[in-house]
Amino acid sequence: MSTQRYASCIQTCNACAVACEHCAAACLQEAMVKDLVTCIRLDRDCADMCRLASRLMCRESALVDEICRLCAIACRACGQECAKHLHEHCQQCAQACERCAEECESMAKAA
Amino acid sequence: MSTQRYASCIQTCNACAVACEHCAAACLQEAMVKDLVTCIRLDRDCADMCRLASRLMCRESALVDEICRLCAIACRACGQECAKHLHEHCQQCAQACERCAEECESMAKAA
Amino acid sequence: MSTQRYASCIQTCNACAVACEHCAAACLQEAMVKDLVTCIRLDRDCADMCRLASRLMCRESALVDEICRLCAIACRACGQECAKHLHEHCQQCAQACERCAEECESMAKAA
Amino acid sequence: MSTQRYASCIQTCNACAVACEHCAAACLQEAMVKDLVTCIRLDRDCADMCRLASRLMCRESALVDEICRLCAIACRACGQECAKHLHEHCQQCAQACERCAEECESMAKAA
Repeated sequence: MSTQRYASCIQTCNACAVACEHCAAACLQEAMVKDLVTCIRLDRDCADMCRLASRLMCRESALVDEICRLCAIACRACGQECAKHLHEHCQQCAQACERCAEECESMAKAA
Repeated sequence: MSTQRYASCIQTCNACAVACEHCAAACLQEAMVKDLVTCIRLDRDCADMCRLASRLMCRESALVDEICRLCAIACRACGQECAKHLHEHCQQCAQACERCAEECESMAKAA
Repeated sequence: MSTQRYASCIQTCNACAVACEHCAAACLQEAMVKDLVTCIRLDRDCADMCRLASRLMCRESALVDEICRLCAIACRACGQECAKHLHEHCQQCAQACERCAEECESMAKAA
Repeated sequence: MSTQRYASCIQTCNACAVACEHCAAACLQEAMVKDLVTCIRLDRDCADMCRLASRLMCRESALVDEICRLCAIACRACGQECAKHLHEHCQQCAQACERCAEECESMAKAA
């Protein structure tokens, strides 16, 4: 067994989950938290989806393609919302989501 | 906000995750663990999928239909494998998976 | 192997995780979300802790007493914060946390 | 808000969770899976603990010290078991666990 082919996507998913968790926590501390409610909601979905994708790839689950496809959807939604906000944590999260969406989409097709 | 419409499916997913976790742990203790490797693998995927479905329903995520559809696939695969084994934990898990697959499929269509 | 002795505490932890997830999501929808930031933060910690406690009990992990002790701390903190807010989801969550704290404390001592 | 002080420990926890997940999945594929049952059990506990520690650090939770202390215990137990087995996945996991135990212990004291 080898997780070689998944190694990069696992790393990217983990990095995206960290960025989303951090963004959600940081949004909650912002003065204008009210404007960031959608961002927080999508951060949480995206973080959870990235974590499950990462886990299933580690295990070479038969559901890798399905979860990666779904993870890419969550990343796109979160990345588009985050990109609207100028906070550094939102901008960093938007980039992490974009990267992760691309890699998960490739994985979903290849798997 | 209300999770009323999801309440039953959340319960069913949680119960299925418990059954799968228990089945995996019990399989690992069986003398013939070698024959149960696929069962353990599918138990773990199914448990993780049920937990994520439960969580996204609690939050009324926009991805509820997608995750419920995927959860039903994981439940079907796990339930069919578990049904082959006569251990009580496998039989109980098969039933929990069957129930959860049905409810998640309905939810995926309704959501 | 039997999870009989953990069955009640597993149920209570799952119920508390659902209440916390729901409370966090509902708080994010409230007009005065700014006043609920601490509540949301503690809801998330508590939900995650309850889920891990539940999972480790399902597996009869050697760390059951430690995680239940820690879960009780998370439940107390979350329950006390939720109790301050009059929203129905906060009050329900406070009750779920209180119940879960008690059961996890008993489990931590007994395990 | 900054997760700077946690950045290294978050990475180490994520890497350890990946190593544990991979080791558990690879152990299940080994011919002598019967000899690896304890390894698989501890891998799973350790992976879950690392993931929760990572998540709570991302959020700068008040429970960081507690979960890092507990995560170090899980890592020590898993690392010691993995070190007994000559499979490459076990040896790699043992190293990841050792590193993570040390970093989590430092974090638990510093937090």
